Amino acid sequence: MSIGTLVLLRHGESEWNASNQFTGWVDVHLTDKGIGEGKRAGKLLEEQGVLPDVVYTSLLRRAINTANIALDEADRHWIPVVRDWRLNERHYGKLQGLNKAQIRDEFGEEQFMAWRRSYDTPPPPIDAGSEYSQDGDVRYAGITVPATECLKDVVERMVPYWESTISKELLAGKNVLVAAHGNSLRAMVKHLDGMSDDSITGLNIPTGIPLRYDLDENLKPTNPGGTYLDPDAAAAGAAAVANQGSK
Amino acid sequence: MSIGTLVLLRHGESEWNASNQFTGWVDVHLTDKGIGEGKRAGKLLEEQGVLPDVVYTSLLRRAINTANIALDEADRHWIPVVRDWRLNERHYGKLQGLNKAQIRDEFGEEQFMAWRRSYDTPPPPIDAGSEYSQDGDVRYAGITVPATECLKDVVERMVPYWESTISKELLAGKNVLVAAHGNSLRAMVKHLDGMSDDSITGLNIPTGIPLRYDLDENLKPTNPGGTYLDPDAAAAGAAAVANQGSK
Repeated sequence: MSIGTLVLLRHGESEWNASNQFTGWVDVHLTDKGIGEGKRAGKLLEEQGVLPDVVYTSLLRRAINTANIALDEADRHWIPVVRDWRLNERHYGKLQGLNKAQIRDEFGEEQFMAWRRSYDTPPPPIDAGSEYSQDGDVRYAGITVPATECLKDVVERMVPYWESTISKELLAGKNVLVAAHGNSLRAMVKHLDGMSDDSITGLNIPTGIPLRYDLDENLKPTNPGGTYLDPDAAAAGAAAVANQGSK
Repeated sequence: MSIGTLVLLRHGESEWNASNQFTGWVDVHLTDKGIGEGKRAGKLLEEQGVLPDVVYTSLLRRAINTANIALDEADRHWIPVVRDWRLNERHYGKLQGLNKAQIRDEFGEEQFMAWRRSYDTPPPPIDAGSEYSQDGDVRYAGITVPATECLKDVVERMVPYWESTISKELLAGKNVLVAAHGNSLRAMVKHLDGMSDDSITGLNIPTGIPLRYDLDENLKPTNPGGTYLDPDAAAAGAAAVANQGSK
């Protein structure tokens, strides 16, 4: 059996994408625009015949609902579902809930970009009693909820999960949809494309546009960098992500 | 560990509930009213603290989407999901797609009620090439899609599934939500309450109102018949189901 196709899907616009707040593990809703992006993603999957056999999601509703909407649109709502915290967005520590432009003003461009995009600089840890902390959230029973994460931390939780689960489905010939987040998907792309710690810092993933990876039997992409199902929209979307925090 | 709580949820109003057509395995959408019923079901779960740890659904979008909507409303969108065709609605054979009032007029009250509610009288089988047949639908790859079913057929496919999966989750202490259909849930209720083949014919399950079962360690209900989370709405809804096909 030939190897399945991998499709990565960053959730559609969330309420905090729209209000330019750091989100991380805070479980915000999609906006109407985000719901529309989910539908559009489903149409792209259907039109291009990229039909998932199984879907993996994080434990956050913006990814879960984007997957639900897209799969319903593509008439694949009935496929098996797997959810795991290791596909969650990076935990943004003390920045969760704060406005990106304000953080940029207060701490300066350099520190702002280091927290957003450096590979191994986590933001300061979130306060234990913060309203934006996930301590005690029942969905994370059994794990130690991080107080902050850098992208390296995300890679270190995501890659073992990839190896033990998602990659095995692909090797069994299944098409897999991963509905997740900017940074958990950047971690996956870094791993798939063998990118250096430096080169991943410049990569932005737009919301709501399926990114297809065709893999060989060693799980190496035959289309390095993947192929967006709508390349023009993806280019515009990636530029918008890069400019977050600008006035 | 004590046994978990079971909650049965019939999908909200579908397009064919609204147009009074026999639906069966045809995969129709929820109406706006049905979406609202899903939200209301989620609010009831949350308000009454009946919080599922895992959800089982059929392979049909009216049940899948009702579960998605209700769980998002109850902040339990992140729980594990299991889907199986054995929770599907009864296959209505040749009646699928036909208007209930027309069938009643054409075949008379007695035949109409026998097809709708007798335990072991299936409707005539659907034609192989019918637009409402599920032959060849990829979601049913590996099983023989029925050409028609009576409630007895549903019991015979549902009970082994209950015994091998859902009941084990309950015995492991998990609260289980089953999002399914009028007849797959009637089959489950018949089994749980030990109802006779005759007595089940008079039982109607309303759309969108969670029905809680508290079970003992032998999986026998300590609240026989279950407890609707909104009893008044359930009584009105059950009466409406009973009257389907009336003019």
